[in-house]
Amino acid sequence: MRDVAVVGIGMNKWGELWDKSIRDIFVEAALTAIDDAGVDMLDSMAIGCMTGGLFVGQEHLASMMADYLGYKNLAASRVESACASGGLAFRTAFIEVASGISDVVLAGGVEKMTDVSGDGATYALATAADQEYEVFHGATFPGLYALMAVAHMEKYGTTRDMLSAVAVKNHVNGSMNPNAQYPFKISVEDVNNSVMVASPLRILDCSPITDGAAAVILTTVDIARKLGKPIIKIIGSGHATDTIALHARKDLTTLNATKIAAERAFKMAGKTIKDIDFAEVHDCFTIAEIVVTESLGIFAPGKGGEAAANGETSLEGSFPINTSGGLKSKGHPVGATGIGQVVEVVKQLRGEAENGRQLKKNPKTAMTQNMGGSGGSTLVHILEVA
Amino acid sequence: MRDVAVVGIGMNKWGELWDKSIRDIFVEAALTAIDDAGVDMLDSMAIGCMTGGLFVGQEHLASMMADYLGYKNLAASRVESACASGGLAFRTAFIEVASGISDVVLAGGVEKMTDVSGDGATYALATAADQEYEVFHGATFPGLYALMAVAHMEKYGTTRDMLSAVAVKNHVNGSMNPNAQYPFKISVEDVNNSVMVASPLRILDCSPITDGAAAVILTTVDIARKLGKPIIKIIGSGHATDTIALHARKDLTTLNATKIAAERAFKMAGKTIKDIDFAEVHDCFTIAEIVVTESLGIFAPGKGGEAAANGETSLEGSFPINTSGGLKSKGHPVGATGIGQVVEVVKQLRGEAENGRQLKKNPKTAMTQNMGGSGGSTLVHILEVA
Repeated sequence: MRDVAVVGIGMNKWGELWDKSIRDIFVEAALTAIDDAGVDMLDSMAIGCMTGGLFVGQEHLASMMADYLGYKNLAASRVESACASGGLAFRTAFIEVASGISDVVLAGGVEKMTDVSGDGATYALATAADQEYEVFHGATFPGLYALMAVAHMEKYGTTRDMLSAVAVKNHVNGSMNPNAQYPFKISVEDVNNSVMVASPLRILDCSPITDGAAAVILTTVDIARKLGKPIIKIIGSGHATDTIALHARKDLTTLNATKIAAERAFKMAGKTIKDIDFAEVHDCFTIAEIVVTESLGIFAPGKGGEAAANGETSLEGSFPINTSGGLKSKGHPVGATGIGQVVEVVKQLRGEAENGRQLKKNPKTAMTQNMGGSGGSTLVHILEVA
Repeated sequence: MRDVAVVGIGMNKWGELWDKSIRDIFVEAALTAIDDAGVDMLDSMAIGCMTGGLFVGQEHLASMMADYLGYKNLAASRVESACASGGLAFRTAFIEVASGISDVVLAGGVEKMTDVSGDGATYALATAADQEYEVFHGATFPGLYALMAVAHMEKYGTTRDMLSAVAVKNHVNGSMNPNAQYPFKISVEDVNNSVMVASPLRILDCSPITDGAAAVILTTVDIARKLGKPIIKIIGSGHATDTIALHARKDLTTLNATKIAAERAFKMAGKTIKDIDFAEVHDCFTIAEIVVTESLGIFAPGKGGEAAANGETSLEGSFPINTSGGLKSKGHPVGATGIGQVVEVVKQLRGEAENGRQLKKNPKTAMTQNMGGSGGSTLVHILEVA
């Protein structure tokens, strides 16, 4: 397998993009990444999208996007693993370059979520859960994550304020991200008093419905050197699944797919969690960030909430989490989220994060963790400055 | 890149499977392939499915299927390229094994199409066309392929009877396939007099709505030798896209993505069309088989219909096409079709095709061509007895 680097990144401002179609949104981000890399030829493209069918009535997305991007006839694939579709696109592109079958590959993600009416978005998202055993009986994602929150509070004494601390911290970071959907700060009181969605989760515990895209360019380290770009190497890639139905798991307070995907990525990289300087993780709900940081081994089981409340995951903390603002503040266009995480990690590793959110400690090694549904699939990647 | 072989195949009887869910259907085919290969460990899985979201309200399919197959935590991906999703899963698995990231990979495909009511299936399939410029204005797939048929008849003098000859030949082959949805013979008169769908295409020009799955096991040639299985090598893989909107193409009588995907596969294999003994191609409509055989270079432009009518594509012909019965008789569970093609090719190359449809000429090299929508994406693979 060949060494692979990220040499270009692109994303647009995420939000409710009423004046743009899914193709506009994707092409904008993709062209930014192509420009950033300084490449003009692509060998292939992998696009993560959770459900173009249910959100905009459009499957066969990769072909359409290749055409609109000006790369007609490109070998273009769409991959899906619910909210981890972006992470899966990144891994697909990584394997393509590593294998030698392609030299320059665009990995992208896109979702246009605001064109559905009524409970259309809630239903579309629910198809990441088990239709026959969860969705049919009325389960929605806030409800499923609420079950995890209740279990975590019961087992470890995690508190309302600890959940809120996650949201507050991510909004501080997002307030410095020019691409964030909700770039404003909130207080613990704001979260604690916001409207209840599924007890104990309130609206400010939840990531929003978002239109957006992100794209990155992968190539061999050898080609990257010729391009004269900063070389951010992908040193580890881990992919694992779990039951998509929550009721089939032994324990709701940990995420096995995340644990196993991280082990696989660490094994490939020859690293441990102690070698990682910061991470972008999948905070679709505040409780998710807490459970994920524990499952990754950043904090001991049951200590993730306390760590967030103590500022350990802030920009100045011992292990900064979601410097981009995370899904909570930056937004969560589901298929694009995993690529958006890579965009932030590359910015930080290049020293290019905007508006004062650049980490001061000169980070060298970072991790992304992107998961689908209630954790039924997870992609973990480790990137390092070469 | 490492040499890759197919060492296991599995599919179930395709049809209207009212008593089985999408998970039952997939697991049945996947277990058959695993048994056939004689492997017990998988490193990963790639599943093609066009639109689980619209057909059965289920995305995140790969995680669910890994769990139900008894491989919880497997690195399992779903890929989509409309009706070419199965072919894309096969390529994804091929690249995984070739790269060295995985040793044993299951490539599968599945679609459960009969659980929707009203025009649900027609709408779900239409999302493979351009939603904003085709579907919104009322275009459906029979309509789009009818435009291609009219253009081909006008330009080359292709006749009603030539279209019918394709359907008749495929039903002859399918009548010998125990897994075919419609294993009966039809006559030219049956096709000519069947109900009109979109002029000039009649119902017996169209492939059916089908529930079904197929799976194959890929591994390195080295591991294949240890398993003691017949070694069918994948010597060429080509993937190309085109505009998904028909109106954006210069010529409706040829399929550029098919042409280019074939060129790419031939280049990798170091072969030409003259080296190929037979092929499974994407006959979603009779006109499709004619245009595809021309675009692949099997017959000269405009000569595909005549070749079918003259018996050149029959089991005894100079270039047998769709010995399985094709999409027309075997059925077309869209995400599974590309893998079903590989199943047939492997059977023929092993000399195991059932009920008298085994090719007499002792075939050594075969091709599969699987396309999405009206040809907006195509996967071509070349397989050879090692």
